[in-house]
Amino acid sequence: MTEIAGKAHEFTIRVYWEDTDAGGIVYHANYLNFMERGRTEMLRDLGLGQGALQARDGLTFVVRRMDLVFDRPAVLDDLLVVETFVAEIGGASMTLGQRVLKDGAVLASATVVIVAIAEGKAKRIPADIRSLFLGDE
Amino acid sequence: MTEIAGKAHEFTIRVYWEDTDAGGIVYHANYLNFMERGRTEMLRDLGLGQGALQARDGLTFVVRRMDLVFDRPAVLDDLLVVETFVAEIGGASMTLGQRVLKDGAVLASATVVIVAIAEGKAKRIPADIRSLFLGDE
Amino acid sequence: MTEIAGKAHEFTIRVYWEDTDAGGIVYHANYLNFMERGRTEMLRDLGLGQGALQARDGLTFVVRRMDLVFDRPAVLDDLLVVETFVAEIGGASMTLGQRVLKDGAVLASATVVIVAIAEGKAKRIPADIRSLFLGDE
Amino acid sequence: MTEIAGKAHEFTIRVYWEDTDAGGIVYHANYLNFMERGRTEMLRDLGLGQGALQARDGLTFVVRRMDLVFDRPAVLDDLLVVETFVAEIGGASMTLGQRVLKDGAVLASATVVIVAIAEGKAKRIPADIRSLFLGDE
Repeated sequence: MTEIAGKAHEFTIRVYWEDTDAGGIVYHANYLNFMERGRTEMLRDLGLGQGALQARDGLTFVVRRMDLVFDRPAVLDDLLVVETFVAEIGGASMTLGQRVLKDGAVLASATVVIVAIAEGKAKRIPADIRSLFLGDE
Repeated sequence: MTEIAGKAHEFTIRVYWEDTDAGGIVYHANYLNFMERGRTEMLRDLGLGQGALQARDGLTFVVRRMDLVFDRPAVLDDLLVVETFVAEIGGASMTLGQRVLKDGAVLASATVVIVAIAEGKAKRIPADIRSLFLGDE
Repeated sequence: MTEIAGKAHEFTIRVYWEDTDAGGIVYHANYLNFMERGRTEMLRDLGLGQGALQARDGLTFVVRRMDLVFDRPAVLDDLLVVETFVAEIGGASMTLGQRVLKDGAVLASATVVIVAIAEGKAKRIPADIRSLFLGDE
Repeated sequence: MTEIAGKAHEFTIRVYWEDTDAGGIVYHANYLNFMERGRTEMLRDLGLGQGALQARDGLTFVVRRMDLVFDRPAVLDDLLVVETFVAEIGGASMTLGQRVLKDGAVLASATVVIVAIAEGKAKRIPADIRSLFLGDE
C-alpha cells in the first residue's frame, strides 16, 4: 500500500429539515449521506462520475468498513464542509479519510474502506484510475 | 372503473428517531414511507410480494399521483396504524385510499394513484391480480 | 386571497445514491425532500432563514396539503432544478406551486399548502412577511 | 468497566423500497437506522422508552463512536434480525455490539459507543439503569 499525501477534496453541504431529528440536531446516520456525497463529488472531480465508472466493466465502489466518531452536533441551516482524502490504495480497495466540519471545527470524522466491485466480486482497481487517485496524472 | 367496498388493510408502524425532525415531530415526507410500507404489506398479504410481481413479466407498481392531507403530527415512539384500501381499479392503474392513524385519530391521509408498469411502460393489470383486489377469489 | 404573478424561485439539486431505490430511479418520497429544500431556499433568499422565522414569535411553516404528480423518473447523478412560486396567500396559509425539472422537462410537480404556526397553533402571517412574498418591497 | 455476558436482544426488520438504492441493495447508511431501531427496542424492552428516559432528568443516549463492517448486502423484502448486546458499561458511556443478520448470516456488524447526556453534557448513567443493563434486577 502507498501513503498518499494529497490535498483533501472539499464539498459544501447545507443542513435541511430532512437531516435533523427530534433531538434538534442532525440524525447520526445522515452524516453517512453527507460523506457519501463527498466521495461521489471527489470521484466526479476526478472524471469518475458513476456513468464513467459503470462504463468501466460495470465498476462500482462499495463501502466495506467505516469507523466513525461523532464529536459535535450540526443543526438546521448549518453550512458544512465535507473533506475527503485518499489515505491508502490497495489492490481492490482504498482507504479514505473523511471529516465533516463547521466553521473549521470537526463535527464528525471517519475512516472509510471502499472496495471496487464488478458483477458482485472484488475487482482490481484499474491502473489509470489508481493514477488519478495518486495524482500521477 | 369499479367501486370496491372492501375492508381496509391495516399495518402497524413504530416511529423511530430516523422519522422525526428538529420540529420534534415526524418529518412530513416520511408519511410517504409509512404509506409505501402499507401498500407493500397489502400486496404481500394478497400473495403479491415484489418477487411474485417481478416474476409476472417484470411487473411493478409505481406512484403516479398522490393527494396528501397532513392533519396532526406524530411524535417519537408513537405506534401508528396505516390503513390502505382499493378505491378503484382501471386498466393499468388503481386508486388507493390511505390513512395514518394514532389511537383512532387520523394524522394524515392520501389518495394514491398507482400504475402497473413493465419495461418502463404502463401495462394492463392482469385479470387474476385484478380479481385479488376486487376480492373475487 | 391574492393571485401572485411572480418569477419562480429556482434551486439546483444533484441526485445521490441516498435518493435512489432498487428500481434504479429516485424514490418517490424523496421528491418531497427536494421540494422542501426548494421552499427553504426560497425563504432564505427572502431573508427568512429558519433562525429569522423562529425569532418572529417562534414562527414555523408546516405542510398541510400536498397534491403531487410524478411524471418521469430522475436517476443517479441527475442535476435537477426545483422551481417554487407563491400562488396564493391567505391569512395563515400560503399555496405554493413547485416543479422538479431535468433539462427543462417536468419530472414531478406539486401544489403545496403551508400554514404558519406558532406554539402549535395557526397564526396570521405577519404583514411584512406577506409583503416579501407579494414582492411589495 | 465490566464485561457483560448476556443474551443479545433481537428485533426483526423488513426491508422496504425506501431502504434500497439504485445498486439494487440496501443503502449502507440505512443499516444505521436498523441498528438504531434495535437499540431503541432493547431500551424499550428494559422499560426505558424515550419517555421514561426523558423523565429521568432529560436523559438521552447519543452515539459517540461506531465501527462498522459491511459484509453482505440485503435486498428488497428481506426479513432481517438486528442483534444488540451490551459489551461494557462505563461511567457515562456504554459499548454495544450489534449485528444485522439474514437467515443466520451476518450482513453487517458494529461496535457502538453511546453516551448518556442531559442538557448537552455527558452524565453518569444512573445506578438503577446500570443494573438493568447488567441484568442485576
